[in-house]
Amino acid sequence: MARANAFYAQSGGVTAVINASACGVIETARKHKDRIGKVYAGRNGIVGALREELIDTGKESARAIAGLRSTPSGAFGSCRYKLKSLAENRREYERLIDVFRAHDIRYFFYNGGGDSQDTANKVAQIGESLGYPLTCIGVPKTVDNDLPFTDCCPGFGSVAKYVAVSTREAALDVASMCETSTKVFILEVMGRHAGWIAAAAGLAKEQEDDAPHIILFPEIPFERKAFIAKVRETVQRVGYCVVVVSEGAQHADGTFLADAGGKDAFGHTQLGGVAPAIAAMIRDELGYKYHWAVADYLQRAARHIASATDVEQAYAVGRAAVEFALAGYNAVMPVIVRKRDAPYRWSVDAVPLAKVANVERRMPRGYISRDGFGITASARRYLAPLIGGEDYPEYQGGLPRYVRLKNVLVEPKLPAFEV
Amino acid sequence: MARANAFYAQSGGVTAVINASACGVIETARKHKDRIGKVYAGRNGIVGALREELIDTGKESARAIAGLRSTPSGAFGSCRYKLKSLAENRREYERLIDVFRAHDIRYFFYNGGGDSQDTANKVAQIGESLGYPLTCIGVPKTVDNDLPFTDCCPGFGSVAKYVAVSTREAALDVASMCETSTKVFILEVMGRHAGWIAAAAGLAKEQEDDAPHIILFPEIPFERKAFIAKVRETVQRVGYCVVVVSEGAQHADGTFLADAGGKDAFGHTQLGGVAPAIAAMIRDELGYKYHWAVADYLQRAARHIASATDVEQAYAVGRAAVEFALAGYNAVMPVIVRKRDAPYRWSVDAVPLAKVANVERRMPRGYISRDGFGITASARRYLAPLIGGEDYPEYQGGLPRYVRLKNVLVEPKLPAFEV
Repeated sequence: MARANAFYAQSGGVTAVINASACGVIETARKHKDRIGKVYAGRNGIVGALREELIDTGKESARAIAGLRSTPSGAFGSCRYKLKSLAENRREYERLIDVFRAHDIRYFFYNGGGDSQDTANKVAQIGESLGYPLTCIGVPKTVDNDLPFTDCCPGFGSVAKYVAVSTREAALDVASMCETSTKVFILEVMGRHAGWIAAAAGLAKEQEDDAPHIILFPEIPFERKAFIAKVRETVQRVGYCVVVVSEGAQHADGTFLADAGGKDAFGHTQLGGVAPAIAAMIRDELGYKYHWAVADYLQRAARHIASATDVEQAYAVGRAAVEFALAGYNAVMPVIVRKRDAPYRWSVDAVPLAKVANVERRMPRGYISRDGFGITASARRYLAPLIGGEDYPEYQGGLPRYVRLKNVLVEPKLPAFEV
Repeated sequence: MARANAFYAQSGGVTAVINASACGVIETARKHKDRIGKVYAGRNGIVGALREELIDTGKESARAIAGLRSTPSGAFGSCRYKLKSLAENRREYERLIDVFRAHDIRYFFYNGGGDSQDTANKVAQIGESLGYPLTCIGVPKTVDNDLPFTDCCPGFGSVAKYVAVSTREAALDVASMCETSTKVFILEVMGRHAGWIAAAAGLAKEQEDDAPHIILFPEIPFERKAFIAKVRETVQRVGYCVVVVSEGAQHADGTFLADAGGKDAFGHTQLGGVAPAIAAMIRDELGYKYHWAVADYLQRAARHIASATDVEQAYAVGRAAVEFALAGYNAVMPVIVRKRDAPYRWSVDAVPLAKVANVERRMPRGYISRDGFGITASARRYLAPLIGGEDYPEYQGGLPRYVRLKNVLVEPKLPAFEV
């Protein structure tokens, strides 16, 4: 294939390491200038392609691009924007191809979760059906860790580390005060449908009575009586109780413990506030003094405590995406393949997007303890390596020095397009 | 004075660095074995003295004590337990003296906030009035930064750093998604009466339109209309709006924006949940998609991102407490004296407990911008050095290796005492 340009976009909720993937894509592309000309990035993700708002990453210095490796969030902007099916909205897919054609873009790297891998796959199909030569590679990303085939999803390890560290730290606080003050502490973490993030809190526990004492998973229907009994028993035995609750914790009938109302662009219910709901339950039933925290964006933006393993993997899948594209692969996604648990050994492989798209990986039931309130040894074996290693950003004046890109837009060549 | 034993206790809400003060006290005492015999620590603070639950810190290795420097929370346990006035509860003060006498304790180091400094002062008085020779030294600690005379309170710098870092990180997240998703992010931080912690978030801002765009201080009566207008204007101009709100934010009539009901042992109202209250307001008035986080204990336990300056100062006031005691001072508290802003230079001095007790330092109005929503250059000048430097704990398996003490209790010599 002759020299052509590439398009890279970030999609969906951002993470502490999605920019590390961007760094992997751009740095690798820059090493292959004979094959890849410019790397354009979508301003605010795929919306940038539709609107022909293309950022010329060539305007950024090598130093700035290297800085992406240690900068959280999406440096080019991301979006929650799901392209409909080809049948429903062929117009948008055709527009993408028009924009790609206008800018001689023949590589498409789409960095996101399950919905985005599905989109990347559809773009590959439309390219083919329109006779436009386009190499589409998905780059995995999601704190939810719910993509199939890959050992884990870049972004997850760093949230996992943040949650495990925060649980250990907050638990020490509660333990030291429980004699006369707070007895129950509740930490709400992300995880709409799968309890991967909540499970990671379990890594904080070293000894039998260590926190977290209770983890509430979306996978296990919430039983108020059993929960309250376990809190009471824990406070009586240990003196305090630390509860980590997934935002997606739900009743047996599938309703969420906390439903903030509203839906996002993907039609998902917008959640929030399960921690205060649990706290109110404890107040009413047990009368213990409680505190609660909701980590929300703090957990997925916490580059300051990123997992070195996660950063490395995020970079690796970005690099592999470009390498696979240059090797002639199409409609694939790089995945992490685990070779060994301890010491952790992994490599990168490719799986077809068609197999990835819209398949949600659930947490194995065998990762959750029999009583439903904790994790098992096999969960630990799986999770432990993913939080391994620290990868601190540079600091200046006591704060991390995160990179600011110039994000220079390319002159548009096509008429405007309504998104 | 002949050789005698020392008693050290942690009081009130713990911090990321109160153990660094304990480390300073114990390591310094160990260097003066000719003057100080054993260092006993109160199990769960002053309650441990009343109950004669004394931890023999001599049972801990030098390595374990050194580990306290990088371990958050109160390693001996702390308490929210305020001794009443001498007139109201002479019995407890006399019990303290009985316990001290029984264990030949003639040094009392009390590590806490304003209430605790008041207690330390009263203990000094009762010792004198009962003719028991007792050296009482307060060791400052409070994330609220509200002790007078000292440049800052150990514990504050680390919360300040956590809040500034978290604000910067979460803001990057919101900025990258705001085009199609969350437009307003609200972070609730501690600070019941003073906005020191909320103000520290302001350090995250480097450029005009950087986050935080709005800080809500307890010092500035909340004006719903002005607030909503500012959120709207910020979203329209910048694309998103990051709000940092102090838990103590209040209306003009002094009622808190969020009052969780309940009171703690000091009679303070137990707060929580101002972030969701603000979020609901934004939903109702503006309809923007929002997210909110409540950092709660995570912020004051976050040793993983402690300020190196704070750690050093916490250790220094612990060391100074022992040195002052040995130099013959009594009823004093070591304070930090600022010599220079940049580069930050400071030394340690002593002030009488009688002057410290129950004086609350407010944030100067000159630290808050004219519109009441931000901080001024002088606030920056004051705050910036306090978050300076990183002091990372050791890690093992991806998690901080915090020390676990043996906390061996000394055989009691007195009859039991009801607390």
